[in-house]
Parts: sequence; structure tokens; C-alpha cells
Amino acid sequence: MLIVMHHHATAEQIEAVKTNVEAMGLRAEPIPGSMRTAIGVLDNQGYVDDSTIRELPGVREVIHVSKPYKLVSRDFHPQGTVVDVAGVKIGDGEKAVMMAGPCSIETAEQMHTAAQQVQAAGGHILRGGAFKPRTGPHSFQGLGVAGLKLLSDAGRAVGLPVVTEVMRIEQLDVICEHADLLQIGARNMQNFDLLKEVGKLNHPVLLKRGLSATIEEFLAAAEYIVAEGNSQVILCERGIRTFEKATRNTLDLSVVPLIRSMSHLPIIVDPSHATGMRPLVPVMARAALVAGAHGLMVEMHPEPEKALCDGAQSLDPQAFEKLMVDLVRIEAFLEELGD
Amino acid sequence: MLIVMHHHATAEQIEAVKTNVEAMGLRAEPIPGSMRTAIGVLDNQGYVDDSTIRELPGVREVIHVSKPYKLVSRDFHPQGTVVDVAGVKIGDGEKAVMMAGPCSIETAEQMHTAAQQVQAAGGHILRGGAFKPRTGPHSFQGLGVAGLKLLSDAGRAVGLPVVTEVMRIEQLDVICEHADLLQIGARNMQNFDLLKEVGKLNHPVLLKRGLSATIEEFLAAAEYIVAEGNSQVILCERGIRTFEKATRNTLDLSVVPLIRSMSHLPIIVDPSHATGMRPLVPVMARAALVAGAHGLMVEMHPEPEKALCDGAQSLDPQAFEKLMVDLVRIEAFLEELGD
Amino acid sequence: MLIVMHHHATAEQIEAVKTNVEAMGLRAEPIPGSMRTAIGVLDNQGYVDDSTIRELPGVREVIHVSKPYKLVSRDFHPQGTVVDVAGVKIGDGEKAVMMAGPCSIETAEQMHTAAQQVQAAGGHILRGGAFKPRTGPHSFQGLGVAGLKLLSDAGRAVGLPVVTEVMRIEQLDVICEHADLLQIGARNMQNFDLLKEVGKLNHPVLLKRGLSATIEEFLAAAEYIVAEGNSQVILCERGIRTFEKATRNTLDLSVVPLIRSMSHLPIIVDPSHATGMRPLVPVMARAALVAGAHGLMVEMHPEPEKALCDGAQSLDPQAFEKLMVDLVRIEAFLEELGD
Amino acid sequence: MLIVMHHHATAEQIEAVKTNVEAMGLRAEPIPGSMRTAIGVLDNQGYVDDSTIRELPGVREVIHVSKPYKLVSRDFHPQGTVVDVAGVKIGDGEKAVMMAGPCSIETAEQMHTAAQQVQAAGGHILRGGAFKPRTGPHSFQGLGVAGLKLLSDAGRAVGLPVVTEVMRIEQLDVICEHADLLQIGARNMQNFDLLKEVGKLNHPVLLKRGLSATIEEFLAAAEYIVAEGNSQVILCERGIRTFEKATRNTLDLSVVPLIRSMSHLPIIVDPSHATGMRPLVPVMARAALVAGAHGLMVEMHPEPEKALCDGAQSLDPQAFEKLMVDLVRIEAFLEELGD
Repeated sequence: MLIVMHHHATAEQIEAVKTNVEAMGLRAEPIPGSMRTAIGVLDNQGYVDDSTIRELPGVREVIHVSKPYKLVSRDFHPQGTVVDVAGVKIGDGEKAVMMAGPCSIETAEQMHTAAQQVQAAGGHILRGGAFKPRTGPHSFQGLGVAGLKLLSDAGRAVGLPVVTEVMRIEQLDVICEHADLLQIGARNMQNFDLLKEVGKLNHPVLLKRGLSATIEEFLAAAEYIVAEGNSQVILCERGIRTFEKATRNTLDLSVVPLIRSMSHLPIIVDPSHATGMRPLVPVMARAALVAGAHGLMVEMHPEPEKALCDGAQSLDPQAFEKLMVDLVRIEAFLEELGD
Repeated sequence: MLIVMHHHATAEQIEAVKTNVEAMGLRAEPIPGSMRTAIGVLDNQGYVDDSTIRELPGVREVIHVSKPYKLVSRDFHPQGTVVDVAGVKIGDGEKAVMMAGPCSIETAEQMHTAAQQVQAAGGHILRGGAFKPRTGPHSFQGLGVAGLKLLSDAGRAVGLPVVTEVMRIEQLDVICEHADLLQIGARNMQNFDLLKEVGKLNHPVLLKRGLSATIEEFLAAAEYIVAEGNSQVILCERGIRTFEKATRNTLDLSVVPLIRSMSHLPIIVDPSHATGMRPLVPVMARAALVAGAHGLMVEMHPEPEKALCDGAQSLDPQAFEKLMVDLVRIEAFLEELGD
Repeated sequence: MLIVMHHHATAEQIEAVKTNVEAMGLRAEPIPGSMRTAIGVLDNQGYVDDSTIRELPGVREVIHVSKPYKLVSRDFHPQGTVVDVAGVKIGDGEKAVMMAGPCSIETAEQMHTAAQQVQAAGGHILRGGAFKPRTGPHSFQGLGVAGLKLLSDAGRAVGLPVVTEVMRIEQLDVICEHADLLQIGARNMQNFDLLKEVGKLNHPVLLKRGLSATIEEFLAAAEYIVAEGNSQVILCERGIRTFEKATRNTLDLSVVPLIRSMSHLPIIVDPSHATGMRPLVPVMARAALVAGAHGLMVEMHPEPEKALCDGAQSLDPQAFEKLMVDLVRIEAFLEELGD
Repeated sequence: MLIVMHHHATAEQIEAVKTNVEAMGLRAEPIPGSMRTAIGVLDNQGYVDDSTIRELPGVREVIHVSKPYKLVSRDFHPQGTVVDVAGVKIGDGEKAVMMAGPCSIETAEQMHTAAQQVQAAGGHILRGGAFKPRTGPHSFQGLGVAGLKLLSDAGRAVGLPVVTEVMRIEQLDVICEHADLLQIGARNMQNFDLLKEVGKLNHPVLLKRGLSATIEEFLAAAEYIVAEGNSQVILCERGIRTFEKATRNTLDLSVVPLIRSMSHLPIIVDPSHATGMRPLVPVMARAALVAGAHGLMVEMHPEPEKALCDGAQSLDPQAFEKLMVDLVRIEAFLEELGD
């Protein structure tokens, strides 16, 4: 941490800051400059809470060097983590993984059809929402526990692991019974109690980036899970909120190579929620792989025009099949291309 | 809802959209124009899910007219709701209410001192956090249940109701026992399960706006609570996330008159979290009242330079006392000034 | 400037950074810590371009302490600048100034009526646009030079100075002939050549904040003008672009006290463009004054429902008159209230 | 345009709106609904200025269907425009074009070396800035006209066309003499007078997206150029401003397929300014091509660690050469892959 003093700060003010820092058990090293003095704070083992210092007389700015996460950082754990979802491996050195299926679980028939289509096209994990976070209470909220069973039955029938969203702690038991991968949605990325509880489980977790979460906050959220003992965490970029309204969100693909350099956790991309527009999904899926994503999550519905939720961004089975063919070819090409 | 067709849409495509709308039990009314046809959707009682229509062939855009909330709208409930927090009334026609106290509950002594200072200066409700949402797991997470007791003891000792943040459903019982007003923090504004559960209680709720929540999403979140039967909801603007980093967040004061015209729920302002800078708190508190806020929430700590959390944005007791004097005078002045 | 090295940076890498800094004529002071080394850069007189250093091997982050402006900073010029617009004074210690008038200059009659209404209600400066920046080329672009004459005639007739927007350098001569205050619009805040040219004039300038300009960029833009010799610069907050679409822009009122502490230049607020909604203009104008604005700029049209531009955010003469009455009372009240 | 009335709007208010619309020469068609009436506005040939209608009594919202651009829209001009820059063709059906070179023109030697390196690696157009838009006036502002000559000499020596940024109208003549492609930078995207003037020239233009420009505003800015008669316009995505600060800007790659569907103008991507980080440039360049970009613009400097500007985001010659090899292979692969 660096504490920058005002150019008119007095020697007493500088001394007071030093004393305050030392009271926290840290070392303070003044660096006098031509225009102002800065004070380096040393010996801290991680992020320092600056709130007692930021407003001391004569202090102009406090600059942080340490980050609010450590366990998820590649600095301290250079080798990539490979997450194992019921046999499907995701991470450095593994094949890109495709998670696909409808936004909402609707009927047994819909899920069985979807599962067969995902499996036949070469997808690896079946998705489907039983508990749905909707902006308003008057929209369809999902089938709940009944939906979970439809999902796991459909997955088991075709031999695919399944992923579904968790919204409350009391649901964890029943969801763990039926799902192989627990999804924490964007709106719950900073639901810290939920993060802590999934951190205590022995179940892999898919953590989606919050709508306006910085990369630092995203990694700090993952740190909550890992700090409780569960290091089976997959990150997922799904678009951020910006001023642009032509797309549902703004897909931030630069985050993929950046997170790969900052963290050892795998990162996948969800182009369906990021763009909100079916025609953009395949092209952005291709771009995501080229940007280095360890996998993809896309919405596919047997009959998108009849979907209860997110039909406009769901691929139909033909488009999904085409996308899978492309992805296999892209992966082969990337391998050839090298770094 | 209005469905805008491409200018090259065929008569068959227009017919197909019409059929699709009618299958939803609604009426479709084509409006032919010189360049393109639009189709008005009528007879819906609220927000229509457009996902099955948005990507039909020939459709260019779907425009919503209905909103995802209704119960919280002033359109359908013109009279302002007055929320009663253990005798303190908040809403149209009532005096502006001041909620103040430390960010975190730390010790019995700190809370008693804070309570006396808030009460002596004329504050109405005592705040203090027992469960703290922190970006990273390595920061102080609050005293938990032990803190709740310190808070309620301190409030009772000086005769002030107390408000504290709720982060998980299992805590609701114990928090209701100790607190008069339940705060849902910005990070949980779209924790829909938590909203539903507080909606089932007979306890007033303070709902903070999410970091990147639109006004529409903010009101739809309140709708979750009211739809379950609890209409004792106070909204709170606490700054939104923008590109600007000189302040912690960007205080969006225009939201105050706007929400007052759109909803019957009271709205207060938290200038401490919005600005993150102690020197800006009193001036923005004054501006918030003039903008029409029904009350304020500010952080005040007996010794901000020793606070475990948010010291840099906490007022000291002297500044708080000065602010209370100003607020009383501003209120009197506003009454004189009229609308 | 502080250069933070990776925790695995080698001694050679640290040495290389040091050499590089010294080649720029600056002093480099390593600060070894328990986890990583940081290097303080000293003896710089202002902002240092970090581009040759940021990507040297072993460098993790470069943190700036100096700002890209100095002349406009209150650090080096504690006394507030008072700008004189043909006798109307704006700045610390002066009465709040009201600039008002229509968005676009349309006819001689419209401008004379507007001028009389502004003057009668107690306004200080008449505004009107002759050159209009419109999103698309097919919208009304203003009357040009003919409009300028209508504006200055109208102002002269009632004894009010006039302000109008400048969009290109070749227009400066003719605009200076007719206008007392030159406005640089939000879209041109970083039109650096225009800034430099108005910096060479002996004419006061009103600089509006860009749609997505940080405070640092805003002050650096003003620095362009002052660096050329013209220190008669008034800043204007007019709303920033955020994800929120319920208002035209998001009025960032915290910027007012913040800029007052950071710069000696006066700052005014334009609630008309910030909100885009007539009913919000008076209330946000009042809040702006309470936040410490040195003045206001509002759109007022004799017949808003017939305006060629921005009618929806223009006050009518009655609402403007009411606003002026309120402002005089607010000023008196603020004087009483003190700091 | 659709005018949505409040549910309590009176028949008189609806009639008044109708009258007002008809006074504009348009047709008004009321659409009564179960909860409120909407009024469709027909017969307009393009975007309608809503300012006289938006605040009429009883009006709740005005929704636009037409856009502020038409000439650049693919709706009315389905075939892709191919821009010819001194023989290098950019657009649908052409090979992807690489524009590369240093941020700033510094010396004859630097430019000759850079030109040889760009040409040898297979680049198509040489870039270099003679007039530099810098945040503050105390940073290096470019060599000006002297720089232009260095650029054109270097380009001519190796047979490459050159591109450089235009910042003021008076520079257009001398820049057209030396450069084959005129760049309008992000900060000038809404410098409408500059757009109009380049619209009158017979010179191709590269228009960069503004830092916070929506796609609609971006296309409307291009419309200014095309409306004056110059249809040789290339669009360039270069990152937008968001809350995320880990990258310099947020590269919005979804805009590439979206603009390709909305407009007939070619679109390229600048990953250097978008990310601001050298290690991210090659990977995002690859992703941009896969997203459908018609070309790329990247910063390459013979010795990035000595660059006067943007060294941290400039590729060195080796990395550039590697990128060109990759791009040729990617293009071949994409051709094989098909749509």
C-alpha cells in the first residue's frame, strides 16, 4: 500500500500516519519527493483495510498494491486447476467443454429431446434451469424440485452430467443430489453466504461474473469459495452491463486471456446471455474459443419459438449441431496454430 | 407491446406473428406504415414475455410498454405509502427521517456511545452492521448474532429503533427478534429468494438499489416483496457504478423525484456509500433532502479513525451533530418554499 | 509514480527498471517489501508517461500519483477564480448565476420574447444555439450566423450578456463578435485543437463535461485552455452516460463539491440536458445550488411545445419564473446556513 | 413512432396529441388497449423529433422505431461497400486488411524501419500519428506536418498506402496530400463539422467509435460523412468505456457481426487501444477476425520500450511478424469453415 500525502502536509501529519500504520503491525517507509511525500506500507501479507488511514489529515490518496484474493491467483499457484465434472475435465490442457440445453426445464419430453440433441451433436454437459432468477415476480419462476428430477433423468438417459442454478442455501442438498455442477448466477455473484456454503461442499461450482463486477471482484468472489476448501471452481464470463443497449449485455472477451494469466481457475464463456440475440451466438462462441476459453455454455431449445424463457437467444438443434461441428474444427485448428 | 417488422417482411411473416400472439391469448393489431408494418399487442394485463416472438422471421424489434411491476406503481396506487418503523414514520407528508450509526458493530461501548450521539443529535433510527458483505473473504465479516444483541441493547437504551442488514434467509428469525427494520443490501437487491422471504414477514424492509440496477429493476425487486404481502418497503438510493472512479460510486439524485412520481413507496438516500468520502457526505445529504428524499442513512462512528470498516466515509459525532442542525433548518425551509 | 514489481521479479529486472527511469532524468527508489518490491519514481515535475516502463519484464503495475493537469488545480492556486462575463461575475464568493434561454435560436420574435422573459424573471445570461450538434445529419442543424445575430440583438435589447456554442475553429471570429461567453459542448470536450484556439482568445469559456469524461479528463481539458493563456474558464456538469436510461443522462452532483475542492475554476450545473425531463429540472436545479454550484444553465422556451429542439426538457416561462423565485430564496437560505 | 398514453389520459388529451402529430404532416392512429391507449405515428420518412410531443399532458412515453441514419443502413443498400485505399480493398468478399505502425511518428529512421517491418511481414497499410490527441497538454503532441512527410516518405519507399489521424479542418488539405486514408479518432467521432468536411472530400475515411458511443450514434456519425457524398467510410471498433479498469477499454467484439448485419460499411478492429496491454493484442486480433472483422489496426514499434507514446500496447516486430503468419492461416481456415 502506498499513502500519498498532500504537498502541503506537515511533518507532524506524516509522523501521525506513520504511527497509525505501525499500530496495525506494519512497517511505514516515507519516500520524500520533490513535490510531496509518499509513505510505503510494507510487511503486510495481503490486502490492508485503509479506512482508518484514508481520511487522516494530510493524506491525499491511498493506493493499493495487494489484491483482495490470493488463493485463486496464478502468482501463488502457477499450474492450472482442472475441474472434474463427473468425468468431464475442464481447464488448461483439456479439450474445450460444451454445456448446452434450454434456459428453463419445462417438461420431461422437452428435456429428453434436448438431452439427446446435445449428446448427439457432441456436447459434454446438459444445462437446464429449475429455479429461475427473473427480474419481476410475475414471470415464470421455474419448476423447482420437480424440474431437477426431469433434468437429472434426462442427463442420465444419455450419459451426460448436468448443471443447474442454485439460488438459496436450503436448496443445496436437493440440488447436489440431482446435479453434477452447481451454477451461481450473475445476480448472486456477491451473495457471500451462498458462496461460503458451496465452498463447504465437495461439488464443482460454476461461478458467473456479476453484471457489473470488476475482474478483481470476480476473483474475490471465487476466493470466498476456495477459502472454504472447495477449489473446484469454473469461472464464466457472460457479458457485462454497459451503456450499449443494442445487445443484451456487452461480451467482454478480453477477460478470457486476462483471467487465464491472473488465475489458475478455468474460464468459460456464455455467448447466449452476453448477446441476447440468436444470430450472434455461434459467431461469438467461435471468437470465445479463439480468445482462449476453456469451454462454452449456450442455450439450445428443441423448439425455441415455444420456449418459456429466453427463446430469442436459444439456438435451435440444427444451429447447435452446426456450432459443434465448427468447434471441433476450431479446436483442431488452434492446436495446429500453437500459442 | 409493439412488434416492429422489417420493411421487407412478407404478408405471411406478419400473419405468422399475429397467429403467435393470438396463441398467447392476446390481441394483435397490425398498423401498416409507409416504410414498415408494426403490430400492436393488446389485452395483456402486464408485462409480456417476448422471447417466443423476438426472433420470428421478419421481426425487427419488440418494444415493451408494460413494466415488470404493478403493485409498487403510483399509477395504480396514487397515495404514498407511509412505513412505520416502531413508531417512526417514513413517507409522503412525514418529516425526513435520519438513520445513522457505524458501518460495523464492534463493541458494546462503541454502540452505546454511538446510540447516545445519534439520539442526542436528533437522529431517528440507529444503524449498525452485524453481518457484513465484504468484497473478499479475508476482510472483517462482522460480529454476527453477538453484534445484533449489542445493537438492540444500544437502541433500547436510548429509545431508538434499529436497522441492520440481512444476508441469508436462516438469519431472518434472529434478526427480526433484534431489529425493527431489515436492510437488504445493494449486492442482494436481486437475491430473489431473500426478497420473497422478507415479503412474507410482518416487518418493514429497507431495500437498497443494486450497483448497476436500473430504476425498472429496482422497482421490480420491490415488487417481489410487496407481491408476497409485505408493503412496508422503503427504497434507498446509494450510488451506482459508472466509469468515474474519483468517488466510490455515482450518487444518482435524479432518481429521487423520478421514483417519487413512479412509485408510492418512500425513498431515502445514503450519501456515505454513494460518495465514499467523508467531506462530501454532509453536502450531498443536504442536496438529497432538497431533491425530495424522505430520509437519509449516514455512517457515523464515535471514532472514525479507529473504525474496523468504512472509516473514511464515516462522519465523526461533531460533523453529525452539525448535519442534524442543518437538516432541521432545511426541512423548515423546504416547507416554507413549497413545491 | 510507483512501479510495482511481480513477486517473482529478479534483481536484474529491478535494476533494468531503475536504469530506464534514470534515463528519463528521474530518480528511482526501490522499496523492498515482504512479498514484492516496489520502485518509487521521484523528482518528476508532473505526470510521467509510463508507456516505456509499463511492459518491461517483471513489472506488474504502474501507479500514477501526479495528475495530467496543474494550472487548474487548487493545490497550486488556492484562491477561487472569478470569471467575468460582460460584467456578470461567476465563482467563489459571488451570487449564483442563471443562464437561460432556448436550445435553438429559431426566430427574432422567439429570441426577443425569451430574452424579455429571462431578464424579467431575474436571469443573468441569455443562452441560444446557432450551431447545433445533432446525433444525425437529418435533424435541424441550427440557423448558423444568422442565428448569432438574432441572439446578440435579443441580448442587447434587454441588457443581458449572451452565451452560445462553438463547434469549429473558423467560427470563432464571428462568434466572438456576437457572444460574450463561448460554450464548448460535451461532444467537443476533447476536441483539443478547438480547446487550444479558445485558449488563445481573450474571451470567457464555458466548458461542458464530456458524456463519459472522468473528472481527471475534465480538468485536463480545461488545462488545455488555461495553458494557452486564457484562465477565464467555467466548468459545467451536464450529466454523464451510464447504463440507466430512465433519464437522458445521469446528473453527477457529487462532482460539484469535489471539483470545488480540486480546482479553483467555477462550476455550474445544467439540469436540462442531465435529466432530459422537464418535471425534473426545477428540483435538480435546487439540489445543484445546495450542492454548491456557482450557477445554473437551463433551457427555457416561450412555447416549449413548438420548440424545434429539446422541447421536452425546456421549461415554460411560468416554470422558469417560479424557479428564479426559488433560487433567490435558496441562496439567501444557504448564506444563513453557512458551510 | 409510438406514443404511449397514461392509463388515466383523457379523450381530450389523446385528441390533442393526434392534432399535434397531424400538424407535423404525419398520420396518427390510436390503438386502444385494455389498460391504456397508444398512438401509432405513420407516414414519416425517417426519424421524427419527438420534443414537442414527449411532454404533452397525458403522454407517458414516446418510442422510436425509425433510426437517425438511413444511407449507411444495409436495409436500404444490401450489398457491402468495398473501400479502396490506394489499391488496397476493404469490405465484404475481400481479404482481411492489416494496418500497422507506431502510435506516433518520431523520426525518419523509426518510420522507415517500421515501414519495412510492416511490409516484410505482409501488412497492407502503414499507420503513424502526426497530430496526437492527448488527455493533457503537457504530453507529447506529435510532430505535425513534419511528421506527415516522414510518414508518406516511409510508405512510398516500401509501396504501402498510409493512414493518419485528422484533428482539425484546416489540416485536411495537407493531410490529403500525404495520406491515403484519413482517420477520425474516437474523441472526434461526434465532431460533426469535421465529419461534414471529410464528407466533401474524395478520400477514404476511417471512423473510430467514440469512447461511449452507442452503435446507433456510431452509424449516425458515419451517416454525416456519407450524406455529404463520401461513401468511402470504414468503421473501427476500438473498445468502449465501462466500469472495468483492468483493461484500458472494453473491446466490444459483438459489434462486429451486429454492424455487418445493420450496415453495408466495412468494419475493422483495433485491439491495441481496446486492451492497452501488449500481451492481449495478438489473441484479441485473432478473435476479431473470427468475429468477422474486415481488417485490423495494431500498433507496432521497432523498439516499443523507447516509444514516445503507447509503448506498453505496441507489438515489437517479432510479435507482429508472428501475428501476420497467424492471420493468414486464420483467414484460410475461416474460408474453409464457411459461414
